[in-house]
Amino acid sequence: MGRITQRRPVLRLSTAGQGKRTRRPDTLVVEEPLEIRVSGRALTLTMRTPGDDFDLVAGFLTGEGVLHSAKDITAMRYCTDLGEDGQPTFNAVDVQLADGVAPPDPSIERAFYTTSACGVCGTTSIEALRRRAPYDIAADTARFDPEVLVRLPDTLRERQKVFERTGGLHAAGLFDADGRLRALREDVGRHNAVDKVVGWALRDDQLPLSGCVLMVSGRASFELTQKAVQAGIPALAAVSAPSSLAVELAEDAGLTLIGFLRGDSMNVYSGAHRITDQST
Amino acid sequence: MGRITQRRPVLRLSTAGQGKRTRRPDTLVVEEPLEIRVSGRALTLTMRTPGDDFDLVAGFLTGEGVLHSAKDITAMRYCTDLGEDGQPTFNAVDVQLADGVAPPDPSIERAFYTTSACGVCGTTSIEALRRRAPYDIAADTARFDPEVLVRLPDTLRERQKVFERTGGLHAAGLFDADGRLRALREDVGRHNAVDKVVGWALRDDQLPLSGCVLMVSGRASFELTQKAVQAGIPALAAVSAPSSLAVELAEDAGLTLIGFLRGDSMNVYSGAHRITDQST
Repeated sequence: MGRITQRRPVLRLSTAGQGKRTRRPDTLVVEEPLEIRVSGRALTLTMRTPGDDFDLVAGFLTGEGVLHSAKDITAMRYCTDLGEDGQPTFNAVDVQLADGVAPPDPSIERAFYTTSACGVCGTTSIEALRRRAPYDIAADTARFDPEVLVRLPDTLRERQKVFERTGGLHAAGLFDADGRLRALREDVGRHNAVDKVVGWALRDDQLPLSGCVLMVSGRASFELTQKAVQAGIPALAAVSAPSSLAVELAEDAGLTLIGFLRGDSMNVYSGAHRITDQST
Repeated sequence: MGRITQRRPVLRLSTAGQGKRTRRPDTLVVEEPLEIRVSGRALTLTMRTPGDDFDLVAGFLTGEGVLHSAKDITAMRYCTDLGEDGQPTFNAVDVQLADGVAPPDPSIERAFYTTSACGVCGTTSIEALRRRAPYDIAADTARFDPEVLVRLPDTLRERQKVFERTGGLHAAGLFDADGRLRALREDVGRHNAVDKVVGWALRDDQLPLSGCVLMVSGRASFELTQKAVQAGIPALAAVSAPSSLAVELAEDAGLTLIGFLRGDSMNVYSGAHRITDQST
């Protein structure tokens, strides 16, 4: 718990100055497995940075289409099994679902990426992988000002506490259309950072996240785009490139997808109608 | 097949110069699902960039501890199911294992990260996740010259063909101790890039990859470290930070783990005895 960073000795080497070698402590980002259980049954295992684990679990299950509001969860607890040192490992979380909430499809059991019971072969990939979106993102009337958008990466970086120390964390930040940060989460896995933000919102009963933009520190993959869609977020912005499938899904769902948001510019891959035009 | 990049229209926006907006085509990296089947049975699904799919499958199964040499595979083929357009999708690969090769443990079926049948709770995380390494990496007598190592990131970048166009790909490069590139693979997923390199080596009967260093474009996670260990690679170098669990595994396996390999310097997190000392 709270073991977000770890100190380790490291040999720092430089080829300049006749091969300077120094030994010093270095701060590493902690990576540990988390097993997600639903009603006592193991669903999946993800490598994550400890902290905000309940948000991570709630967000993961929201992305999977299992959860839609805080009341879908009746209880969440750490497994109390003990590790070798006699202390709880805090590496498994069990979720109890409310009556009427369908548990995850057993065909996707323990499978993070496997979202298609029938296999992907013989159908178009996007159809096989897509879940039915619970919210109509295309109907979201939010508009985003480019001047506000270009400031998001700096805000994200300034508020990233652990990255400064480790250089090893992805971040996901949820902003409103005025650029105000509503939630920021960091993790060694970029999908986990997004799950933690979405899970926080679900547990705080804020879904759908209408009018918001989700900013991620890396690239925009299909998976991250799907997580945004499932949370009802109308815009996803990434520092780096989107993939082809991310753009296809964004177009299909009516999501505004922004890539290469750096300096004073950006690329808008879909949903450009939500970007206000300064020049008019 | 070979659909590695895709052209898409994009709106390029800048807040400088009164909000300049230009429409132009942009090159995106293609991301598509690949279902991996063993003897007709679906094992897992990964999002990948098409190309070198057989290497990807072979490398994935090597990392899982299923394959150890080319003769462990008797056949590999694309599923011939047709997509909506009447063309094969090439999004599923089936592997036939040789007699005597144990298929993947059903308890890890369809689970990329789930490598522990008993769950991780109640055991130390690293023990639960580790596989028995097939090679004795600690006994690898390779030595690496810092002057050679600092040139690897540039070589990797120069040889990355797709990144230049899309900015969206991870790369993994296998080098010998003299810095000669033996294999380079790119993918939207960094684990896939490593799997493609390892799978190429397995299919070319080059395992274990003694004396080599594997260079990756991003961070060094537990997962990537485990893939290196399973392939008998004595050194893993990353442009960015390693995680705590990556360092623990590297120490335990006797792997040399290098992070922040940039400019003329690097951090050595484990196995520093393999780094030659220029100053002596």
